[in-house]
Amino acid sequence: MAMPLYDSIKRAATGVLWSGDHLFPRIPETIDMLRSKGKQLVFVTNNSTKSRADYKKKFDKMGISAQEEEVFGSSYSAAIYISRILKLQPPKDKVFVLGETGVEQELQSENVRYCGGTDKSLLRDITPEDYSSIADGSALDDEVAVVLTGLDFHPSYLKYSLGMAYLNRGAKFLATNIDSSLPSAGSLFPGAGSTSAPLITATKKEPLALGKPSQAMMDAIEGKFQFDRKKACMIGDRLNTDIQFGIEGKLGGTLCVLTGVSKKEEFLGRGAEVVPSAYVDQLGDLLG
Amino acid sequence: MAMPLYDSIKRAATGVLWSGDHLFPRIPETIDMLRSKGKQLVFVTNNSTKSRADYKKKFDKMGISAQEEEVFGSSYSAAIYISRILKLQPPKDKVFVLGETGVEQELQSENVRYCGGTDKSLLRDITPEDYSSIADGSALDDEVAVVLTGLDFHPSYLKYSLGMAYLNRGAKFLATNIDSSLPSAGSLFPGAGSTSAPLITATKKEPLALGKPSQAMMDAIEGKFQFDRKKACMIGDRLNTDIQFGIEGKLGGTLCVLTGVSKKEEFLGRGAEVVPSAYVDQLGDLLG
Repeated sequence: MAMPLYDSIKRAATGVLWSGDHLFPRIPETIDMLRSKGKQLVFVTNNSTKSRADYKKKFDKMGISAQEEEVFGSSYSAAIYISRILKLQPPKDKVFVLGETGVEQELQSENVRYCGGTDKSLLRDITPEDYSSIADGSALDDEVAVVLTGLDFHPSYLKYSLGMAYLNRGAKFLATNIDSSLPSAGSLFPGAGSTSAPLITATKKEPLALGKPSQAMMDAIEGKFQFDRKKACMIGDRLNTDIQFGIEGKLGGTLCVLTGVSKKEEFLGRGAEVVPSAYVDQLGDLLG
Repeated sequence: MAMPLYDSIKRAATGVLWSGDHLFPRIPETIDMLRSKGKQLVFVTNNSTKSRADYKKKFDKMGISAQEEEVFGSSYSAAIYISRILKLQPPKDKVFVLGETGVEQELQSENVRYCGGTDKSLLRDITPEDYSSIADGSALDDEVAVVLTGLDFHPSYLKYSLGMAYLNRGAKFLATNIDSSLPSAGSLFPGAGSTSAPLITATKKEPLALGKPSQAMMDAIEGKFQFDRKKACMIGDRLNTDIQFGIEGKLGGTLCVLTGVSKKEEFLGRGAEVVPSAYVDQLGDLLG
């Protein structure tokens, strides 16, 4: 490993360590090697559907040594932003969630109150009564101060309508991340950006995104881990999220692995906009 | 009525004739007066969830004299565009629909084959098998050549994933309309633009919109009714759809009614971008 860096910020999801349930070659050994050299590891993911506890389970299943505290997801980043930056004051301190349990669990971990989310009562047809009660505000929770979107596998017109109404009443608009796509099974599926998109279209408002490459996430990571940016390396497979995140965060280095979304032709050619400090075909190559 | 126009193109939905189930004052009498003066009426709506037959029922219920043939909706406009302009050749002549029965009925009326739409089997959670079968194409219908979005009250991640996959395989991207909002109960709800938004975000492709103010819709109306544009007036309540539609279509005149979305301050002030030829507080004022 050529990089004389102490901290090693890494991407925890598809593309670097694994793809779905397929672990890339020699990943557990590579992680152990980095640890044996005294590197601090942080697994940074934009996936908002899983909590840190969920990720710990996935690491265990894949045979990779990792602690829950080393995982930093976009849901956790959003929860920290809400609890420590926004510091909502009761009674108007609730978050309306369009997303999955990963978002809810991280909000709970920061003692942030929320509604929406996985509430199954919102997965029904909108009714004439809903139109009236949303329009006159009686269906809205006056304690909601924020609308937070993550990747929502259970969209509904009723949820969109409520989200739109809260935003039009002045709620802050946050997104765990706005990735356009989600890699799975060797192809691309709609990403978390598809959950915020209907609300952006309907309200003409843009969310503050708290996942990579947003530097709000870098600040939150730094706030938690107190690392030296000049001695940190961002490893990732996506130029426009991972590598850009490391470059904008002024880390000591960025390393692109070619097991995920981005191809080396995208950064080796002339006029490339985002160029990593180094690249390897796969993370396991760090073993030499 | 000051306008010496023969044809009178009108907006059929909320804002001009009615709002929800509330009929504006003297609408049936105004319609009858226009007919008695020999005006041809066309009711032009961007609402894609209802078919022309559905609208005929609504007119009957509201006591307004109208024929199904006088209704021109964005679903019908899309169906005509597909059948008469695209002229898809079998076997690749199917449309994947994200929308309601209004879209399906109009496609049927033009003998266009479709899938998706109100198919309830798509309203379920996505599974690992879905990821694989969409990625390898085995879940995709090889006969699909077009993805058509209308306002879909029943979104699902599985539908979005299929729509994204078809678009990434080269299907044409059409939208009945891309209205950002849908007026109801005196407030605004997500419009048809919220259905295409996730696909636009996920694929970076933009749909061809076939509702107002798209001139593809004006061309389709002209193709059907053979009217003289210089003798036609567009009546509507929305500057950026109705009035712009009439101006860009070089109609003889445009009339804004103030019973809907737009306010007169928006076009009376300096620097207004879309200005109607005339305005009235409500359509019934044409009776004098």
